[in-house]
Amino acid sequence: MLSLTIVGAGRMGAAVRALAEGPCDDQGAFAVVGQVGHAVEELEALPAADVVIDFSNPATLDAVRSYVTRTGAALVSGTTGYTDAQMESLRELGSRARVLWSGNYSIGVAALRHLVRQAAIELPGFDVEIVECHHNQKADAPSGTAAMLLDAVIDGKGDPEARPVYGRAGICGARSPHEIGVHALRGGTVAGTHTVSFFGPSEEVSLTHRAESREIFARGALAAARRLALLEQGFYTFDEVMFG
Amino acid sequence: MLSLTIVGAGRMGAAVRALAEGPCDDQGAFAVVGQVGHAVEELEALPAADVVIDFSNPATLDAVRSYVTRTGAALVSGTTGYTDAQMESLRELGSRARVLWSGNYSIGVAALRHLVRQAAIELPGFDVEIVECHHNQKADAPSGTAAMLLDAVIDGKGDPEARPVYGRAGICGARSPHEIGVHALRGGTVAGTHTVSFFGPSEEVSLTHRAESREIFARGALAAARRLALLEQGFYTFDEVMFG
Amino acid sequence: MLSLTIVGAGRMGAAVRALAEGPCDDQGAFAVVGQVGHAVEELEALPAADVVIDFSNPATLDAVRSYVTRTGAALVSGTTGYTDAQMESLRELGSRARVLWSGNYSIGVAALRHLVRQAAIELPGFDVEIVECHHNQKADAPSGTAAMLLDAVIDGKGDPEARPVYGRAGICGARSPHEIGVHALRGGTVAGTHTVSFFGPSEEVSLTHRAESREIFARGALAAARRLALLEQGFYTFDEVMFG
Amino acid sequence: MLSLTIVGAGRMGAAVRALAEGPCDDQGAFAVVGQVGHAVEELEALPAADVVIDFSNPATLDAVRSYVTRTGAALVSGTTGYTDAQMESLRELGSRARVLWSGNYSIGVAALRHLVRQAAIELPGFDVEIVECHHNQKADAPSGTAAMLLDAVIDGKGDPEARPVYGRAGICGARSPHEIGVHALRGGTVAGTHTVSFFGPSEEVSLTHRAESREIFARGALAAARRLALLEQGFYTFDEVMFG
Repeated sequence: MLSLTIVGAGRMGAAVRALAEGPCDDQGAFAVVGQVGHAVEELEALPAADVVIDFSNPATLDAVRSYVTRTGAALVSGTTGYTDAQMESLRELGSRARVLWSGNYSIGVAALRHLVRQAAIELPGFDVEIVECHHNQKADAPSGTAAMLLDAVIDGKGDPEARPVYGRAGICGARSPHEIGVHALRGGTVAGTHTVSFFGPSEEVSLTHRAESREIFARGALAAARRLALLEQGFYTFDEVMFG
Repeated sequence: MLSLTIVGAGRMGAAVRALAEGPCDDQGAFAVVGQVGHAVEELEALPAADVVIDFSNPATLDAVRSYVTRTGAALVSGTTGYTDAQMESLRELGSRARVLWSGNYSIGVAALRHLVRQAAIELPGFDVEIVECHHNQKADAPSGTAAMLLDAVIDGKGDPEARPVYGRAGICGARSPHEIGVHALRGGTVAGTHTVSFFGPSEEVSLTHRAESREIFARGALAAARRLALLEQGFYTFDEVMFG
Repeated sequence: MLSLTIVGAGRMGAAVRALAEGPCDDQGAFAVVGQVGHAVEELEALPAADVVIDFSNPATLDAVRSYVTRTGAALVSGTTGYTDAQMESLRELGSRARVLWSGNYSIGVAALRHLVRQAAIELPGFDVEIVECHHNQKADAPSGTAAMLLDAVIDGKGDPEARPVYGRAGICGARSPHEIGVHALRGGTVAGTHTVSFFGPSEEVSLTHRAESREIFARGALAAARRLALLEQGFYTFDEVMFG
Repeated sequence: MLSLTIVGAGRMGAAVRALAEGPCDDQGAFAVVGQVGHAVEELEALPAADVVIDFSNPATLDAVRSYVTRTGAALVSGTTGYTDAQMESLRELGSRARVLWSGNYSIGVAALRHLVRQAAIELPGFDVEIVECHHNQKADAPSGTAAMLLDAVIDGKGDPEARPVYGRAGICGARSPHEIGVHALRGGTVAGTHTVSFFGPSEEVSLTHRAESREIFARGALAAARRLALLEQGFYTFDEVMFG
């Protein structure tokens, strides 16, 4: 039984709590300390927990750090929007506590990133194209995950001239081997699909991740909490905690 | 046994002949009259055939018309690049002979076009995105087939404000219901893949055509020849001959 | 504003109510009369509504029929498990009220079924294979939707010898043209994916439906309610109401 | 310029020669020594080559070994059907020559196998299903490549109870976590498609390889020949030569 303090009253905080308290949890049992979405003043009064999971906003950082320092809890943070100075203070917290920060808690996306990098190494000379699809309300393109996968391709290829192309129309000429097509589909209520395809002479290898719902991020955060609780103090990435 | 005269010595003429003379033809037997790729002077001397199949170039039009007039052969033409006047003379030929002209002889693509139009009618309000993929030497985008499928979507939707979007990058805002995304992937030696996806609330319908090689166009021309030989004189589309 | 009485307190009844009362409804406004999941005695006392939506069980049939007769409400029923006699009495109710019964209220699945039948007509001689995928708790195979799609293929092909094959292993010999492969994948929490592929010489056409959640059935029932309210009395299928 | 002797007059021998002599070879230049498909007596008289590529049959083994011993050529062998004793003598040849034997020379398939194994390690607890598709004349199921991918899944999972299931029909009950579904589609002229899907809670990772034609195997054999010529004597696998 791992005790949790959950900071953040938004969709992700609620999703983490729902999953932690759910009956069919295959990741072991959890106890949630207090209410979800603690205001700063509440955090000061809360009793200790094994792990504090924070999907809130940059304004809560000081309160979260104080809680970690006071109680010795490990910190799993998915809060985005930190300034460089805030990020640095989080890193510094890792010198005396167990701290994990990640922008993406999906285990499948993390695995896909590794597989994409490996494929780019093993299939040199193959043409790479990335296709992502999200719901019709998403206002930016490409997705953060697609950008991360693009980095993994470039890293694996080791091609300093590699560059993304965000669409093709008209007379574009034959494809340059340095191009990496990045295509953003938008439609319906799609939670998030990413495909990276490697096209070679007479063959193709395609790697796809499909998210059914945001629940995957809550699930990944809980799995990471369970593992982080067993590690030494330090500042960790999701990869280091899950696959280290 | 259908006797054929084949005009055009290029890749398509050769593909038609190879298929017509092949041992495993499931479309009935064919006899090829003379050599493939007849020059204009040769056509004048050639004996009659049931059907003349023409995948050549606009310069042969007069000789092909004379052959049809002299022998009463039906004409299956996939020659592109005609002027409007030439196209009109072909149409006029249909008043006294059986004439079929089409820019695409794939049965699967023809079927996909019908299905896409039907889906656009039955799924009003769904967001539509088109993805096509071709080999890395293709110099233009999107493909002619993708443009044809876009027309089928717009026709089915009956939305006068529908407009294609050829890629998304940066802050584009939420998707407009009038957008139709058209995405061109390029890579390897892909013969041609087209997918039209309809995204609705919590569900998606996707229709895909995949070509393995150019042989499909030769096969469609032969199937059309067999059917055209049984029709009355007239100017036909591929759709009318195959699905009429 | 369409007033609704919702019978059935299970997952589907709850989903219909959640959607009918949701803020982002693109299908027009609804008012829900009384509580969801009315017991038989409650239905007797309930005031009239434009439409009664019933996702309950066969035991409520008499109470539902009485409610329709007393109030003149139209009936949208997705209750399964009726005996032949019960089904007949529902049909008879259609002689004096507007009655719709369907085992599947997904608009996308209904469209897919039409498209599959059309493809089977337009692509004679193509080999057909069906693949469905559902979550790992589903205890039977293939899915009801896959069985429905198989019927659409056989209907479109018009091949009296067509027969399903539920898997292949060992030395099976070359594929018979009468075989229709039906493959059931099971894994994770997949809500339901169905693909029907048509394989011809050097080309392939594939039609896919992907459900993200059960919400699609509630959505289809509400859309059908809105349309049924405008029709004459009669016993209707989902197809007749949505595409008639 | 690498000089080659090609043994085997079948489809693969012809494909290797066509590719080695082709104008657009991105793998460097090759010179083919003598005719393709040498009979045993011809091999005895043939001059030396850098590499002998053998896609023939077990009956030629002695002649091929003599050629390697006499000329010092490296051996790239894709001949199947050897007895254990023959395989052992090939291995023994590796003690004094450079010898590569593989049942599959596709670079994409080799990469897919690595990626599948890696995914099985990184996604413990995910349900795995394999789908392969081949032309309608293939008489056995599943394909050799699917069997190889199944081994890679089991190896990566490290689950001693893992077992394949070749189809599902009727009341099968909930899926066991030890099941690995293996589904064989047959249709048209498909050269070979393999997909391995990993289904977890609310997410899915799918890895696909698609072959457009047999040419990929000839291409892989030539690429391997070029690398093998630079190695020390020894008995190698395709993996060791290409990714070692």
